[in-house]
Amino acid sequence: MTTIDLNSDLGEGYGAWRMGDDEAMLSIVSSANVACGFHAGDPAGILKTVKAAAERGVSVGAHVSYPDRVGFGRRDMDVTSAELVADVIYQIGALKGIAAAAGTQVRYVKPHGALYNRIATDAKQGAAVIEAIRAVDPSLVLMGLANAPILDLARNAGLSVVAEAFADRAYTPAGHLVSRREPGAVLHDPALIARRMLRLATDGTIEAADGSVIRIDAKSICVHGDSPDAVAIAREIRRTFEAEGIAVRSFLTQSPA
Amino acid sequence: MTTIDLNSDLGEGYGAWRMGDDEAMLSIVSSANVACGFHAGDPAGILKTVKAAAERGVSVGAHVSYPDRVGFGRRDMDVTSAELVADVIYQIGALKGIAAAAGTQVRYVKPHGALYNRIATDAKQGAAVIEAIRAVDPSLVLMGLANAPILDLARNAGLSVVAEAFADRAYTPAGHLVSRREPGAVLHDPALIARRMLRLATDGTIEAADGSVIRIDAKSICVHGDSPDAVAIAREIRRTFEAEGIAVRSFLTQSPA
Amino acid sequence: MTTIDLNSDLGEGYGAWRMGDDEAMLSIVSSANVACGFHAGDPAGILKTVKAAAERGVSVGAHVSYPDRVGFGRRDMDVTSAELVADVIYQIGALKGIAAAAGTQVRYVKPHGALYNRIATDAKQGAAVIEAIRAVDPSLVLMGLANAPILDLARNAGLSVVAEAFADRAYTPAGHLVSRREPGAVLHDPALIARRMLRLATDGTIEAADGSVIRIDAKSICVHGDSPDAVAIAREIRRTFEAEGIAVRSFLTQSPA
Amino acid sequence: MTTIDLNSDLGEGYGAWRMGDDEAMLSIVSSANVACGFHAGDPAGILKTVKAAAERGVSVGAHVSYPDRVGFGRRDMDVTSAELVADVIYQIGALKGIAAAAGTQVRYVKPHGALYNRIATDAKQGAAVIEAIRAVDPSLVLMGLANAPILDLARNAGLSVVAEAFADRAYTPAGHLVSRREPGAVLHDPALIARRMLRLATDGTIEAADGSVIRIDAKSICVHGDSPDAVAIAREIRRTFEAEGIAVRSFLTQSPA
Repeated sequence: MTTIDLNSDLGEGYGAWRMGDDEAMLSIVSSANVACGFHAGDPAGILKTVKAAAERGVSVGAHVSYPDRVGFGRRDMDVTSAELVADVIYQIGALKGIAAAAGTQVRYVKPHGALYNRIATDAKQGAAVIEAIRAVDPSLVLMGLANAPILDLARNAGLSVVAEAFADRAYTPAGHLVSRREPGAVLHDPALIARRMLRLATDGTIEAADGSVIRIDAKSICVHGDSPDAVAIAREIRRTFEAEGIAVRSFLTQSPA
Repeated sequence: MTTIDLNSDLGEGYGAWRMGDDEAMLSIVSSANVACGFHAGDPAGILKTVKAAAERGVSVGAHVSYPDRVGFGRRDMDVTSAELVADVIYQIGALKGIAAAAGTQVRYVKPHGALYNRIATDAKQGAAVIEAIRAVDPSLVLMGLANAPILDLARNAGLSVVAEAFADRAYTPAGHLVSRREPGAVLHDPALIARRMLRLATDGTIEAADGSVIRIDAKSICVHGDSPDAVAIAREIRRTFEAEGIAVRSFLTQSPA
Repeated sequence: MTTIDLNSDLGEGYGAWRMGDDEAMLSIVSSANVACGFHAGDPAGILKTVKAAAERGVSVGAHVSYPDRVGFGRRDMDVTSAELVADVIYQIGALKGIAAAAGTQVRYVKPHGALYNRIATDAKQGAAVIEAIRAVDPSLVLMGLANAPILDLARNAGLSVVAEAFADRAYTPAGHLVSRREPGAVLHDPALIARRMLRLATDGTIEAADGSVIRIDAKSICVHGDSPDAVAIAREIRRTFEAEGIAVRSFLTQSPA
Repeated sequence: MTTIDLNSDLGEGYGAWRMGDDEAMLSIVSSANVACGFHAGDPAGILKTVKAAAERGVSVGAHVSYPDRVGFGRRDMDVTSAELVADVIYQIGALKGIAAAAGTQVRYVKPHGALYNRIATDAKQGAAVIEAIRAVDPSLVLMGLANAPILDLARNAGLSVVAEAFADRAYTPAGHLVSRREPGAVLHDPALIARRMLRLATDGTIEAADGSVIRIDAKSICVHGDSPDAVAIAREIRRTFEAEGIAVRSFLTQSPA
């Protein structure tokens, strides 16, 4: 039976501010990328989200970020390696503490926003993230962009990795994401998106922006939940998978990469 | 052989800002109360301090605080129990992550500043701190003010506790600290302070502000290191102890409370 | 012709987080209490809100707070007078800078949340807020709770003041707000609330929780906009006022207090 | 009579943390670049520094920064123009409020750290800083690196500018600063530094790293005060100037650029 992981960014409120519909998404996804307080998430909100994930058997990952709350971790920052190593350790540790209190465990690490994009190809910051994970808990899996150099870098350093695709994004013929600055970079039609993800889950292929068919090896698909439309798209993907007999299940329960 | 623990607040720099002389204090104390980022301490600085503590065999404790960096955690705050529970879990978790990366462990929790003073007698916030410690790791010891109700509250909840005395503070005949607002509340003479702590370590007694002799059951003594004078006082206490054959050693290696 | 001011808390988003519907509220109110960055509001968001207020001729006030973003300024804090004076000056100055860039001016100061409640009766923190306003710009008006001692304190110090009532709150027979912990403290029926505010605007009276009729001298009414219901209530109040020939207009254009 | 301005970064403490010796520096310099809270400076500390500057007749400038306190504003950040415009307005406004309370005025703006370096040559972020200054107060002078394109950009936009040289830095033959990563980039000998600055003040020339003599048109010299050595260097420069009959005086009182 084919299985696929669905992951989403959760716990992204802050104090009195809400973002996304964590409850709705936790009934759809199998993996929760939980904010750790640097781009979003206050301890009480994070604890609530991790408890809800634990109750539903959703895997918990640390969604680590640059220290930039006002910019939501979306702005590239020239941090030093020593700073980045320690920042990532701190965030993973904090989420591990929360997870222990919620009766669950942190199983993977997914860098967020600008850090995610930066380490996809920046070997120096990538090495710092890898060093941090290895230092705090080498059993943690690194989730990264399918086809990005960071995955090999992490594997070579001894980490387990999981590659992910993005449900609502167009791909270049070379297998990279089309830049958000290009027209058509972000997809909006739930039925089209669900069909594309079905093909990805069954064949490991996707249609690129130029119509060519490319290979994307991804065991996880990132879906968003920060708008009603995004929740509807995520729901349609899950519905389509279930109708076609594909099990949505954490990548941790799939065969190893 | 008599043993006593000396503890001090460390890791209290922040980014480009320094505070205290961690290196000097780590050669004097047996327990390090390490800032967790809420009143002081950035991840890179905390990691450096915890590594230095690990190298010298100094026990690491989580110096948890209200979220008030600009006020250095010294201002009383009416946080809710849910907020306080989660804030304490988060900070302990973060320091546990740092400690794991440094090859050591967090062994105890000492609330900082206004939170320390508040929970000494405020049962509601005290219960929240106890709940947090139990949730994240019930083997952690709570360090608190000798003779304060929080110690019994924690013991009754199943936590191990360690009582501490303050080297440079005057005591009331009832065994409480003389308020800093009173004249003579803070002592400055290294020789006098060392003699008082020697008596405390050997007899379990101290001379109160009115000249009466009172009982203070404390397995740990808090010494400060945020000024050259404070380091000199701490050094004189340690020197006196060693001259009198008293071993300075973490309370964890002493017989249980 | 009777006139009344309607005020609301605006600019309370932060970075990627939204709160309330500033656009909707700016078409209803005559005075905007704009967050200054300490409990809510980032510079870009504040600037956008102040520009929108300026375009609609809505008066701008500085909604100053304790430095507690994660707690949304709702938690009482034991700040020193020196800290509070400087914090209030800083926030007013920042909003004045934003207002100058938006082609308008800050006209009044309304403390937010826990600070608002604290200074209503705490003369020490109240005096610090007054000192701050006088130091940075003595022409600024202090907005405070009708019947609260802070208003006299400010008047005696030479400040202009404006008293406000709360549209959706029940009052005690003594003219104070019923505590939110009591049942019935917060009103929800738009029609009932509008009728109560109509009476307040025309007669200066309101029915207290015990059915007695009390006097509330208020030139401004606070309405909320952080939920669709709250916007609907605000809209109903304005509609009722206009139907009865009461002009909604900034207190600054009314006769002096 | 020749006059020259000496400027230094001040008000860079934060809460309980100190940095530099503001008192010592205020007796040496004629212009104080005062932190505005984004990289350093809390309101109470800023107010204290601005009051001390006012008492000594030292000109006050806004030392505006990226929002990066833990990184002390030293890390390059990809902020958007809208964010940067608003951040700079907010900081200038806050310092203007503090200055008003201290009985003085903000006279100029000097970007700090990574922002300073970035806008020296990055026209997009430079334009945002210029737009912010013009929006909040077009009479403010922009202080920037001598020979950097930002100065022309600002002049062309209608701002007054003042060029500065760095006392303790080596220069390339092209008139730029030698990168800190190069050996010999930072000078340490007070007598040598003072002689170089004397030549700069009298002839407008300096010896570059390769021994050639280059022209640096600077009306202000930046001296540091964050270490005892730095204060000694600043003092030696001032002493040398006075011995040679050069008046240390704010660039505002010199003839226009």
